[in-house]
Amino acid sequence: MQTTLEIQTQGKGLYPITRPVLDSVRNLPQAGLLNLFICHTSASLLIQENADPTAKEDLEQFFDLLAPEHQSWHRHTLEGPDDTTSHLKSALTQTSLNIPIRQGTLALGTWQGIYLFEHRNSDHSRTVILTVLPT
Amino acid sequence: MQTTLEIQTQGKGLYPITRPVLDSVRNLPQAGLLNLFICHTSASLLIQENADPTAKEDLEQFFDLLAPEHQSWHRHTLEGPDDTTSHLKSALTQTSLNIPIRQGTLALGTWQGIYLFEHRNSDHSRTVILTVLPT
Amino acid sequence: MQTTLEIQTQGKGLYPITRPVLDSVRNLPQAGLLNLFICHTSASLLIQENADPTAKEDLEQFFDLLAPEHQSWHRHTLEGPDDTTSHLKSALTQTSLNIPIRQGTLALGTWQGIYLFEHRNSDHSRTVILTVLPT
Repeated sequence: MQTTLEIQTQGKGLYPITRPVLDSVRNLPQAGLLNLFICHTSASLLIQENADPTAKEDLEQFFDLLAPEHQSWHRHTLEGPDDTTSHLKSALTQTSLNIPIRQGTLALGTWQGIYLFEHRNSDHSRTVILTVLPT
Repeated sequence: MQTTLEIQTQGKGLYPITRPVLDSVRNLPQAGLLNLFICHTSASLLIQENADPTAKEDLEQFFDLLAPEHQSWHRHTLEGPDDTTSHLKSALTQTSLNIPIRQGTLALGTWQGIYLFEHRNSDHSRTVILTVLPT
Repeated sequence: MQTTLEIQTQGKGLYPITRPVLDSVRNLPQAGLLNLFICHTSASLLIQENADPTAKEDLEQFFDLLAPEHQSWHRHTLEGPDDTTSHLKSALTQTSLNIPIRQGTLALGTWQGIYLFEHRNSDHSRTVILTVLPT
């Protein structure tokens, strides 16, 4: 009912993780809830369109425009210009997702995919905890 | 313990859904959690002030200013100028809400209401899955 | 399995609440989920870095820049210039958090802390409902 997923990232951007998530939680109950929790404050989670790649590109650009690097007021830049912006972007998105389980599978809409949103430029290994709750 | 709510929307804006949600989940347990999940990436969910209508108006305008249509860098506009902005606004708000159940009812604060936030200009039918989890 | 936490705030900013949360939920199950829900629309919740205080300062400044007071288009300012901005900031962050319980304790990452994000300038007492769900 609880497992851990390790995701390797190579720089900023949205990484589709619907497939590894589904592979990690087999034998789901008929009805319930799946919680995904990312154990980091410089990467986050998001449910977004899984079809047209331009949706992903616009999302990435939008968050870069909303929280650009190299601002004069930034103080938390010990680990680089992408340090503080990583926290800002993760604060605007999700540390955890909750997806209903229906008829033994995730009840995602047709166009919904699960993404890990990496905000750091360098390579990282990210831990996501999956918890299954029955109704 | 799990049901579906269909909400009809007529263009962009916040639609109050506290009443239909409460009507859909009768016989709640004494304590638990209600999860609401919207099966779309161009509409989202939000808990916000339910009293003064100007709060709703300012929220709608704020998200229009934060993610305006017709930007030169937009690529995902196949379905219109409100295509990519719908994803951006839903990424900034919630795909799912989790509300505690206490003494057999939703433990919303005095001024809290549940809203469906429609980001598309045209009419849509939106599916929200309601899942009740007992403690 | 369900309790309430009252947090006193003295003006805008991020208040660390990991310690009072942990003190409020003893005897956790081996595995499950903790839901935190704030019963207000002018304060919110956030999981963010708990180590370097400059991370907190940048987050506070970022949200002030993203939703500044005294904008000409603001309508919902009956209670002051921080009235509408409080709703905008809470809409961009979280009304509820969901944290996995693993091995009988909260599975927060090394650098993750729980914060109450107060958006009003004056003193407030904020109610947070804690609900424990077993797997």
